[in-house]
Amino acid sequence: MPDLSSDIRPEAILAGRWFDYLRQHSQSRLGVTRASYGEGEQMAHDLMRSIASDLKLEARTDAAGNLYLTLPGADRSLPAIMTGSHLDSVPEGGNYDGAAGVVAGMAMLARWRRANRQPEHDITVMGVRAEELSWFPAPYIGSRAAFGLLEPEALDGCRRPDTGRTLAEHMAEMGFQPERIRMREKQLDAQRIKCFLELHIEQGPVLVQKRLPVGIVTGIRGNLRYRDCHVAGRYGHAGAEPRNSRQDAVLAGVEFVGRLEKLWIEHEAAGKDLVATVGQFHTDTAVHTMTKIPGEVWFSMDIRSEDNAVLLAIDRELREIAQEIGARRGVKIDLGAYTNALPGPIDKTHRARLERLASTLAIPALPMASGAGHDSAVFGTQGVPTAMIFVRNEGGSHNPDEAMDLADFAQGLRLLVAAVEEIDVP
Amino acid sequence: MPDLSSDIRPEAILAGRWFDYLRQHSQSRLGVTRASYGEGEQMAHDLMRSIASDLKLEARTDAAGNLYLTLPGADRSLPAIMTGSHLDSVPEGGNYDGAAGVVAGMAMLARWRRANRQPEHDITVMGVRAEELSWFPAPYIGSRAAFGLLEPEALDGCRRPDTGRTLAEHMAEMGFQPERIRMREKQLDAQRIKCFLELHIEQGPVLVQKRLPVGIVTGIRGNLRYRDCHVAGRYGHAGAEPRNSRQDAVLAGVEFVGRLEKLWIEHEAAGKDLVATVGQFHTDTAVHTMTKIPGEVWFSMDIRSEDNAVLLAIDRELREIAQEIGARRGVKIDLGAYTNALPGPIDKTHRARLERLASTLAIPALPMASGAGHDSAVFGTQGVPTAMIFVRNEGGSHNPDEAMDLADFAQGLRLLVAAVEEIDVP
Repeated sequence: MPDLSSDIRPEAILAGRWFDYLRQHSQSRLGVTRASYGEGEQMAHDLMRSIASDLKLEARTDAAGNLYLTLPGADRSLPAIMTGSHLDSVPEGGNYDGAAGVVAGMAMLARWRRANRQPEHDITVMGVRAEELSWFPAPYIGSRAAFGLLEPEALDGCRRPDTGRTLAEHMAEMGFQPERIRMREKQLDAQRIKCFLELHIEQGPVLVQKRLPVGIVTGIRGNLRYRDCHVAGRYGHAGAEPRNSRQDAVLAGVEFVGRLEKLWIEHEAAGKDLVATVGQFHTDTAVHTMTKIPGEVWFSMDIRSEDNAVLLAIDRELREIAQEIGARRGVKIDLGAYTNALPGPIDKTHRARLERLASTLAIPALPMASGAGHDSAVFGTQGVPTAMIFVRNEGGSHNPDEAMDLADFAQGLRLLVAAVEEIDVP
Repeated sequence: MPDLSSDIRPEAILAGRWFDYLRQHSQSRLGVTRASYGEGEQMAHDLMRSIASDLKLEARTDAAGNLYLTLPGADRSLPAIMTGSHLDSVPEGGNYDGAAGVVAGMAMLARWRRANRQPEHDITVMGVRAEELSWFPAPYIGSRAAFGLLEPEALDGCRRPDTGRTLAEHMAEMGFQPERIRMREKQLDAQRIKCFLELHIEQGPVLVQKRLPVGIVTGIRGNLRYRDCHVAGRYGHAGAEPRNSRQDAVLAGVEFVGRLEKLWIEHEAAGKDLVATVGQFHTDTAVHTMTKIPGEVWFSMDIRSEDNAVLLAIDRELREIAQEIGARRGVKIDLGAYTNALPGPIDKTHRARLERLASTLAIPALPMASGAGHDSAVFGTQGVPTAMIFVRNEGGSHNPDEAMDLADFAQGLRLLVAAVEEIDVP
């Protein structure tokens, strides 16, 4: 009996058709738009359900609207092998961010059906709801709801900007049961999941730059986020105030950001995983002028690493730097409130399996960190052994220029098929 | 016959009453407000005219509404000794910025009258219109109009933000003749002015810091102004994009501003006069977010020096730095359009006289640059020998906290009286 991964061409062609269908039915002005708990996302769920029906799979929708499509295993007492991803997109985004992981799962199950084989374990493809932050500003809504982790405040506090209605209202409107989510009722039992393997497009340019079709994720970067850093100096006359008596918030802020970049370079040179972004930096648009020494600056920081110890070290160093610059320049640099999302644990065994199989199957693959967050991070922190496969993607994600090549997708799919087959019968 | 400057107490007391009158009649919500070609400014002109009438001075208003109050000299063929300043204020500003120079001039003429003396030269106090940029965005409207220098576009292109009406409309409304200003008709002949001495509050904190009541201006700083510097990078995913492939506009912008500060420190260490201000610095508030690598930044620069050669050298160095950072970071730093206002020449003889007289009269005085622009700069560039006296002022200018001590004003007045007396009969 040949390996399932030795021939996945028909399923890769099927996947191409499914992608086309998704794009045609969620095309918006510039890209594709599949709003969380909206029309486009539901269309994608409906497509997956109809494929599942053709493949004669079991289908279940949970109280939060997450979809589970299962090829039943021979021994149903065994924990399920799970794969999948999310089916929503950002507004005017690309066709593959999220959907690629669900399509890959369905293509894999199609491969089992075509081989007329039954696995030992249940194999479940999950279509996760509401992963993108653009619609409701709470992370991982679908996967956290599935594990009873969604804070009730998110249900009533998060409103979709385009409708003004709450998450709970949107859920109820689509026939789901927000009250069960509010009670933190578990829709999924981590103990009953053997592993979660998520295939996703890479959202950065690393695989394109390295000319490799597939990445194997070494860790999902956690982050430190400071939304509201503030420098308080003193406004003054741009011509009449000498340098040494100025309390210039911009000069203090730019020095601080320069020092953050220096720290980054140092940690990177020491072999640490780290990225840092100051996405917002602005003087007070209501009062700033060209001829006034700026008295205030606000900026944000998003700092990510696979290693939370690196993040905590950076936080300490930044606070010392803020103190030192503030004292020297007569300003107050306040880093404000921050959040620390822990890195998503990647299971070493599964990761090693993916690397070995990629090598065996001659799939050129790069071990790499995931800079973006993924539903896998939720599974990982719930103790589910988790791994991720990245597929090369041009043009970045979250924009209409996102462009995955189907041939690259087929390589990722082949790796997923091989891994699941081996996990099922080691 | 004793020097006029040996006793100016009665005139200092008069000046205090005039200041009180000005404050009472232009008090606004937070400070004082004397709009250019508005009620408050006119009130101040009316006060000066009524003082002139008491002192039996000649009074003239020119086509732009500038006021000239003259104590006739014995030889009216001689050029006039002029002093004065502007009578408008910023909105919610202080009582002394501008007015101090006119009040000092009137107090000086009161001193001549009390001594019952007639000068050789005409001595003219000018109440200049519309010096503050807050009302009409064109520099030195009154003094430039007096010399036929105001560009006609300013008459119709500048609108007062509170009324929406043009400068020409406001002038006409108050009974002046904008059409004569439009024809660039000269209201003043530089050849007929022996010198222009302006007393003004210091707008920075230097005299407060040095604990000195009076400053003698060494030069009026010119400026280089870049309103619209732009950094064009590329937006990207804050977590997924490695450092070396980022084109981060904020990191490029902060490095650039840091380099500007470094240049400033170097030039200052080399003994050059220089101040630099980045009053505005901002990412694109419409699209920036904490989790996106910033693709664009805008910032302004205001760089001032007594020495235009320093400004031109800085401009060259900044362009090289922009090029170098841009090439290294894969961004484009465009400094955009800029203006170069020449430094205002201060007459060496008059400056030396002020320093000598301050020493003789035991007035503690500091030679210092004027960081702000003043009407004196217009007189200076028209070839009129010009000098300036600064009076210590707490709390900065252009705000209600501006606070000049009358005792300091009296020291400045004493210096002005002595200088004019000596210029009149050397």
